[in-house]
Amino acid sequence: MNIQSFPSKLLENAVDEFSKLPGIGKKTALRLVLHLLRQPTEEVTQFSKAITTLKLEVKYCKQCNSISDTETCSICSNPYRDASKICVVESIKDVLSIEATNQYHGLYYVLGGVINPMEGIGPADINIGNLVNKIELGNVKEVILALSATLEGDTTNFYIFKKINQFPVSVSVIARGVAFGDDLEYTDEITLGRAIANRTKFETTISN
Amino acid sequence: MNIQSFPSKLLENAVDEFSKLPGIGKKTALRLVLHLLRQPTEEVTQFSKAITTLKLEVKYCKQCNSISDTETCSICSNPYRDASKICVVESIKDVLSIEATNQYHGLYYVLGGVINPMEGIGPADINIGNLVNKIELGNVKEVILALSATLEGDTTNFYIFKKINQFPVSVSVIARGVAFGDDLEYTDEITLGRAIANRTKFETTISN
Repeated sequence: MNIQSFPSKLLENAVDEFSKLPGIGKKTALRLVLHLLRQPTEEVTQFSKAITTLKLEVKYCKQCNSISDTETCSICSNPYRDASKICVVESIKDVLSIEATNQYHGLYYVLGGVINPMEGIGPADINIGNLVNKIELGNVKEVILALSATLEGDTTNFYIFKKINQFPVSVSVIARGVAFGDDLEYTDEITLGRAIANRTKFETTISN
Repeated sequence: MNIQSFPSKLLENAVDEFSKLPGIGKKTALRLVLHLLRQPTEEVTQFSKAITTLKLEVKYCKQCNSISDTETCSICSNPYRDASKICVVESIKDVLSIEATNQYHGLYYVLGGVINPMEGIGPADINIGNLVNKIELGNVKEVILALSATLEGDTTNFYIFKKINQFPVSVSVIARGVAFGDDLEYTDEITLGRAIANRTKFETTISN
């Protein structure tokens, strides 16, 4: 769509700002802006305030680097969570994904990225100092590495393993294999190869 | 994704606000919010300011109802536009779409909707008063109806036609037919039927 054709500079500005967001093109941006324009003023103010407030007041948990409203996040400060387990993830999105499974009740540690030489992210850019400190204190029994199943994730796994291997802590990696619902026919060779190599004992959970 | 799992109320608010937008689900909202969070504070302030400013300061052109920064929009106040033609459209999006074709140099009139009894929008809810006033002044030679090719659009076309038929103005409807690039095989019967009924004289524009 031709930008010059915008009859209003204010509209153009708002559309431009929206189209800076990832995955939002000019047409979608216009649709979103026109939607907001149809809402009552309070709704629009509430929308933009929620974003500015988040940006200005957001804190990062001193324990796990996750986004938090307080110095220590609600997960780290929850006495019912198992503090002997730490799950290392790339971003807060992964924390939310794992939380949604309701299968994990330990703590997290958000790296904020993985080692990626192609993008200039070296081992020094990955903040694992706090993780090592926590392990040194001796309360942690298990570190679960839950990074992406990519070359970068693997490299980072190895780097973290090397750094914490000296401490009496068990290090595990989340299982990789054929995803639930996937056809073997369409599974790539690396995944399938690893799934066979890392096969587990068949155990039926159906008790009749 | 489980909402309860958000470790931060501020984050949850921002995600909630984003997911109120049409076509934006919880996951996309989270992705957009985390993207904004990674931007410098000025960028985020600029984003939310662009939206609030638009909402608070937006004006609607007194001539055509389009969004404008001034009392009269840049199209209506442009002396080079052909004021004898008025193109009636549903929304400002349509103005931008037609402007992008660079084929039309007349003025517009934005209805803000079409008659839609299913959604409780009757003829009284469609603001055509200003359009009738302009035609009454006698400067308008042609009214081009460019509403959606739907039952509601047709009904509205008919309603407008009835209201302005008494004036010496020619009323036309944008052509409906097989879209450029479409296979006849996959064109619906109504479109194809109308395309045959409204066939035009074959004229070659290739001059060798």
